[in-house]
Amino acid sequence: MLIENTIPARLEKIRKRMQEEQIDAYLVLSSDFHDSEYVGDYFKCREYISGFTGSAGTVLVMQDKAGLWTDGRYFLQAEKELLGSGITLFRTGEEHVPALEEYLEEQMPGRGCLGVDGRTLSVSAYRKLKQNLDRKQIAIRTECDLIGDIWSERPEMSCKPAWELDICYTGKTRADKLDTLRKELDKKGADAAVISSLSDIAWALNIRGGDIACTPVVLGFFVLAKEYALWFVQRSAISTELAAGLEQDGIMLRDYQDIYSFLSDELDVQSLYLDPDHVNWMLYEKASVRMQQKKIMEGHNITLLPKAIKNQAEIENMRKAHRKDAVACIRFIYWLKKQMCSTQETGGTGSNGPDAVTEISAAEKLEQFRAEQEHYLGPSFDTIAGYAQHGAVVHYAASRETDMPLKPENFLLADSGGHYLEGTTDITRTIALGPLTREQKHHYTLVLKGNIRLACAKFRYGCTGISLDCLAREALWKEGLDYNHGTGHGVGFLLGVHEPPNCFRNAVSDSRYECMKLEPGMITSDEPGLYIEGAYGIRLENLIVCRELEKSAYGRFLGFETLTLVPFEREAVLTEELDESEREWLNRYHARIFEAVSGCLEKEEREWLAEVTAPL
Amino acid sequence: MLIENTIPARLEKIRKRMQEEQIDAYLVLSSDFHDSEYVGDYFKCREYISGFTGSAGTVLVMQDKAGLWTDGRYFLQAEKELLGSGITLFRTGEEHVPALEEYLEEQMPGRGCLGVDGRTLSVSAYRKLKQNLDRKQIAIRTECDLIGDIWSERPEMSCKPAWELDICYTGKTRADKLDTLRKELDKKGADAAVISSLSDIAWALNIRGGDIACTPVVLGFFVLAKEYALWFVQRSAISTELAAGLEQDGIMLRDYQDIYSFLSDELDVQSLYLDPDHVNWMLYEKASVRMQQKKIMEGHNITLLPKAIKNQAEIENMRKAHRKDAVACIRFIYWLKKQMCSTQETGGTGSNGPDAVTEISAAEKLEQFRAEQEHYLGPSFDTIAGYAQHGAVVHYAASRETDMPLKPENFLLADSGGHYLEGTTDITRTIALGPLTREQKHHYTLVLKGNIRLACAKFRYGCTGISLDCLAREALWKEGLDYNHGTGHGVGFLLGVHEPPNCFRNAVSDSRYECMKLEPGMITSDEPGLYIEGAYGIRLENLIVCRELEKSAYGRFLGFETLTLVPFEREAVLTEELDESEREWLNRYHARIFEAVSGCLEKEEREWLAEVTAPL
Repeated sequence: MLIENTIPARLEKIRKRMQEEQIDAYLVLSSDFHDSEYVGDYFKCREYISGFTGSAGTVLVMQDKAGLWTDGRYFLQAEKELLGSGITLFRTGEEHVPALEEYLEEQMPGRGCLGVDGRTLSVSAYRKLKQNLDRKQIAIRTECDLIGDIWSERPEMSCKPAWELDICYTGKTRADKLDTLRKELDKKGADAAVISSLSDIAWALNIRGGDIACTPVVLGFFVLAKEYALWFVQRSAISTELAAGLEQDGIMLRDYQDIYSFLSDELDVQSLYLDPDHVNWMLYEKASVRMQQKKIMEGHNITLLPKAIKNQAEIENMRKAHRKDAVACIRFIYWLKKQMCSTQETGGTGSNGPDAVTEISAAEKLEQFRAEQEHYLGPSFDTIAGYAQHGAVVHYAASRETDMPLKPENFLLADSGGHYLEGTTDITRTIALGPLTREQKHHYTLVLKGNIRLACAKFRYGCTGISLDCLAREALWKEGLDYNHGTGHGVGFLLGVHEPPNCFRNAVSDSRYECMKLEPGMITSDEPGLYIEGAYGIRLENLIVCRELEKSAYGRFLGFETLTLVPFEREAVLTEELDESEREWLNRYHARIFEAVSGCLEKEEREWLAEVTAPL
Repeated sequence: MLIENTIPARLEKIRKRMQEEQIDAYLVLSSDFHDSEYVGDYFKCREYISGFTGSAGTVLVMQDKAGLWTDGRYFLQAEKELLGSGITLFRTGEEHVPALEEYLEEQMPGRGCLGVDGRTLSVSAYRKLKQNLDRKQIAIRTECDLIGDIWSERPEMSCKPAWELDICYTGKTRADKLDTLRKELDKKGADAAVISSLSDIAWALNIRGGDIACTPVVLGFFVLAKEYALWFVQRSAISTELAAGLEQDGIMLRDYQDIYSFLSDELDVQSLYLDPDHVNWMLYEKASVRMQQKKIMEGHNITLLPKAIKNQAEIENMRKAHRKDAVACIRFIYWLKKQMCSTQETGGTGSNGPDAVTEISAAEKLEQFRAEQEHYLGPSFDTIAGYAQHGAVVHYAASRETDMPLKPENFLLADSGGHYLEGTTDITRTIALGPLTREQKHHYTLVLKGNIRLACAKFRYGCTGISLDCLAREALWKEGLDYNHGTGHGVGFLLGVHEPPNCFRNAVSDSRYECMKLEPGMITSDEPGLYIEGAYGIRLENLIVCRELEKSAYGRFLGFETLTLVPFEREAVLTEELDESEREWLNRYHARIFEAVSGCLEKEEREWLAEVTAPL
């Protein structure tokens, strides 16, 4: 007899449901119905069935076995969390570890049946899966939510109030945006589009909400046709006033759940446009029952570029948000350094005492400084504060068990960001808590060189994120070093802190976002790093906005303006390893910071800032 | 009455044939049946019908109009050659000039019929065309060669003797190669492949020929099945001895023309693999009549990577070929500089006399130096020798009319290459014929910096050509300068001088070759440039081979070895504009050249080489 509500007990229940439904294997993904980066508690089926709390992972349940596939970021965490669950860990990317698709092909009985909730995977993901399973004539059942069936205390779906973001922040009215999008539809020759990614809807409607952690969006689906616009949304999230405003712009409200029946029974257009990477399979299936498959046109969301290319008002607001964020970050760094000094003065013994600063308490202090800023709404992602060897774990999240007191030595890697009415920030600084070795400084300088090289790139229009990435890596590569992540991601305007398509990456992905041109107005992070396992991690991240520089006989040339305004770690820079142009860039950058931020600081903070931004 | 055999007379004939066949528009492409870069005289239908001799261009004939579409390289030439032909020039890429597809859509009658020889366009090209014409329900007839019908004195198809390339050059036997390819087929789950690109066949069979200018290959088609291998080839090109050798390796010969009936009537496999970018539409059509379309698997040729990744013997041979090529090039540069000195001494007046060196005579002299080298087989492409403003025309080819005498001033841009039994070379040097201005030197130095930066790149395995390209452009971009071509192309081993997939490019193309990983053993050109319209052009091109450098905790790191061994132009380099590592690289490179080549030179050449390779 299994103990109630343990993972093995839940697995037993789902296996029983699988037998009833004649499903041989059941797939549990991490996604909500909108392909969101973070998902609300209601959607955490994969966590419910496995106990694994990481952000990425897929569980496969069969009658006699179960497995979790996750990537390198989560190997240690998953090992611990799966203990005693009876679920095997498959370390994606390691040698001899079969990919989920291979495993399915190998383990599934021919002509068997795989179950998966069709709302939790994109059209593209479904097709890839199907292609693999077709070889063994395995059927896929998508109209099943077996976790929902057994999850007795499933949390309610989030339904926070939606609110309107003022034109002074968005720079463009809702009506203008819908007009732009309808023209885009027209160009594509489509009569309507279905958009289900929440950031895209929030951008189009100038509306924000609170249904997703760290992303101020509203759960919903949006159908934009030439003649009408429908927002499928939980009605209780929408105030009467907001509904009236929407109606004025021709947007009618429908119930959140009604999108499926609308597509299968009511849709009345000749051609429908959707993004197969972001629309869930169930939506597609319903639409293709209604209309012939060939009338469904596919491509990137029509919102993709207009949202990514920030307008002048958004850019000006982003500058303001970054000034405020800089005040918070600079105060935090100053405070932290002072704490470390006093720890050192008391002989360092205090560092393990009850008042010691730890990774978690440092992150809380930083959040506190941000919260003091006007129009601050909350963090744009979960802060990563990794001290010493924890800094080398790229997606480290301190927990009560791992939380480490900070000592006046080594590096603290702090990656954090906030949402303000004026926009979204994302910054990583690697802070020296005490004296550094020459090697630590050398490593810091290599990463800094990469950051600067990309920040001061000048390039011809037509360049993509994949063609500039190497600028940030070249100095590291020369020494046989590298970092195992992209160099940068797009950042939304009071939306997702990871926003496509702009990015700096080294390899072509399925989305091919990295092959899209960089356009003036796009805001991207510039964050090279270096991770010395068991010792420390260094990452230096600024947000940069792409700008028009000059037009010559050879074409249009673009460059970047750095939005982030927090000094780099002066004492970690080996000035002699910077070349002349890098040193000049750094000095100009530091001077800009002092000028922009010093007026908002207390006297002693300002004095400290003057010191750390003085020319090198 | 039109004069016999003029372009208008030919157009009249073809229009009559079009009426007979009820074809509304007839498309004449530049390709042979193998998607070759150069085509034999037999295949020059587009030239026959239009008089336009450029390498790229498409002619469309309708009853009341005819047009030629070509790109910027050929605008001037096409204007001249089309004079009096009655054919309108469409300048591809210029504003308000409709693309051929747009024009067809606009001009063709609905439900009309377009004719094109289905052997002269790839499967991919056919599909693209069809997609465009489907909108107007225009039919495409591909079983027609109307030019062939009217071309009374059409040249014979080339049929030069095929010959075997010794294992000491290829490094791998034919049997080994077929074994590798069959394993590749197996991995793809295909029973057979049809390969029609001539370089791929030549590589697989260790056979070379002379049917295509500048590319030593044999006209033919190759079918590789698990159980058999068939080479469809002109029998008279194959000696008895060669045929016997092929038979020993299980390769049977069939007539060149039989490929079509073989595919439609004899093919007996469950699944066929082919490359839609390189196999002609007719082949595909025949195969798909024989088997269900879904049994045809598509992807890059299975020969693509094994051919591009040179083996140790090929690389060692390539080094030898480049030493010989260096001797020829260095002799040429020395000779040319001496000529210029003596022109200067005679007061420069001699430069227009009958003995003056011109672009054409200089190219001939260079060819003569190459011809003196052992195992030299011929040029790997038509030499580009562009003096002064002609150097700024990227694909300039001197003709009797444009040929310019060289004066002891300004730059000569010389881009040339040769085939040796030991491999293929491709080199561009920009030679100072007299004193240079500071700006000329500055421009030369910028291009040199780009060349060096790419040559000494060290990068993690996984990088593609698109991710390194910017290294060669960064210095130019900083000054608002750029060049309008890729930075590098793959080079074959005694095959095409332009060989996919490896390349350095700035944008993603349809082929996506630039998104494929750089692999050790790939040989690519490194050729940044700068073109000052009306004044001069600078291009500096070396071939570089990708090599394994080190394996660290961060991954495998690769780099390049420079194969080309010809000094850069010492007097054009502004040493103070090179950074320390660039200067060191250049000095090491020049020292390597002297060491490798000086032993093969005459005394005075050697003395000169010592001077121009002395450390900067």
